[in-house]
Amino acid sequence: VETPTYLGALQAFAPMEPEVAGVAGDDQGIDLADLARRRGEARFLYVLPNFQNPTGRTMGEARRQALVQTARELALPLLEDNPYGDLWFDTPPPLPLSARYPEGSIYLGSFSKVLAPGLRLGYMVAPPAIAPKLLQAKQAADLHSPTFNQRVVAEVLRDGFLARHVPTIRSLYKAQRDAMLEALAREMRGLDVSWNVPAGGMFLWARLPAGMDAAALLPQAVERGVAFVPGAAFYADGADARTLRLSFVTATREQIATGIAALAATLRENLQP
Amino acid sequence: VETPTYLGALQAFAPMEPEVAGVAGDDQGIDLADLARRRGEARFLYVLPNFQNPTGRTMGEARRQALVQTARELALPLLEDNPYGDLWFDTPPPLPLSARYPEGSIYLGSFSKVLAPGLRLGYMVAPPAIAPKLLQAKQAADLHSPTFNQRVVAEVLRDGFLARHVPTIRSLYKAQRDAMLEALAREMRGLDVSWNVPAGGMFLWARLPAGMDAAALLPQAVERGVAFVPGAAFYADGADARTLRLSFVTATREQIATGIAALAATLRENLQP
Repeated sequence: VETPTYLGALQAFAPMEPEVAGVAGDDQGIDLADLARRRGEARFLYVLPNFQNPTGRTMGEARRQALVQTARELALPLLEDNPYGDLWFDTPPPLPLSARYPEGSIYLGSFSKVLAPGLRLGYMVAPPAIAPKLLQAKQAADLHSPTFNQRVVAEVLRDGFLARHVPTIRSLYKAQRDAMLEALAREMRGLDVSWNVPAGGMFLWARLPAGMDAAALLPQAVERGVAFVPGAAFYADGADARTLRLSFVTATREQIATGIAALAATLRENLQP
Repeated sequence: VETPTYLGALQAFAPMEPEVAGVAGDDQGIDLADLARRRGEARFLYVLPNFQNPTGRTMGEARRQALVQTARELALPLLEDNPYGDLWFDTPPPLPLSARYPEGSIYLGSFSKVLAPGLRLGYMVAPPAIAPKLLQAKQAADLHSPTFNQRVVAEVLRDGFLARHVPTIRSLYKAQRDAMLEALAREMRGLDVSWNVPAGGMFLWARLPAGMDAAALLPQAVERGVAFVPGAAFYADGADARTLRLSFVTATREQIATGIAALAATLRENLQP
């Protein structure tokens, strides 16, 4: 898995009792030198190239080409998770990894972020050789996804609703990301806090001043009326306790401004005098 | 597990790579002497006491009392699956095992057989000590069941629809069971075929003449227009190849008559001369 990676994936893998290995990463995800060094250690690589959960980061074109080349050389299957890919703000992300390496990739899509999470529907694109096995595993797990929900979504797709709806979400989330970036620049001045600028999706990744622990600060922040997800839970190993995930999609611009101010106040309170 | 037991449960357990042990059984399910003899072999017992899938059999009051007593003595947790319990024909089945041994039982209920399988909704009753762990496992598996479907079912329940609908299903399925029993008595005359008389549910269990293999006969039966599920798949071990499961719920009385006649013709064709 990437470092950090999606917590829900780690939880989904857990019942199989895997040994999860975190590959070193940077602002685009997978560090290819580290991946190549650990040849033979993994059965597959789980990767979320677009507006990743938790970091919001995106893998660029060159990194995608190089990752696919490395994966081919290592005969390493890729599990590409793409729930956020449609939520780009200015330009669509580069082609999926699966489109470049279809014989070695499983692609996961979702209706949760573009339509409704309460429907619990997604889809998978897999090589013909393993699709029947995946179908069998799905059947063993839950027989099938609700046919009622599948029909509802099929009607929504046929109607063209998503083509009209997704651009609305994009511009809404972009405005909210901008509000968060403005608030961070304003409120964190003078504090040793860093953050990235996600080009889409729902999340922004921040890092607190040296010596601070996001999990330890959370209760104080909640007391001031703002919550975040401490970053540590997203690491398969070697967690960075200074990191945290901020979401800009369910709060209004005003709430974002208030929340970031409350977070900054929490940090100031905890600074060494 | 019981012998035989629900195939879908075996498939659901399979990814955990358990060693599945089949306990000997009779027309009421679990053979308690065999269960006691195998003390310490199992982490839990999966049991379907009402109108079981695949056999349609039901555990009587005395057997339930004795099973719960044995389970207590062995400190053996019970996983009680009850999707068919509301589908009784003349009298409701005895109290669930979980009602007698709540501290050692997990009870599973379902809306699939009384409302709609396409909603994929059920429920669980578990001791307070393990409920949080089960919730965690559910969250790891799929985050949650679709909230949309949960709201739909909540509305249907509030409206009292089930109280009106379930009696309709009961009398429909009872008439269809009777049609199947009549057809069997008529068509299987002179053949060494045996079957049970389910007191509810959807299934009837039959056993073919010595030397016959239900799985081998299936293609011929399908050619004559009737399908069944060969019993062998429902055994964790030591399958009885002569057994088969017949469903009487999705076919009309006329189709049932035609289907049983076609099955009898298939058997006659395969009798040793």
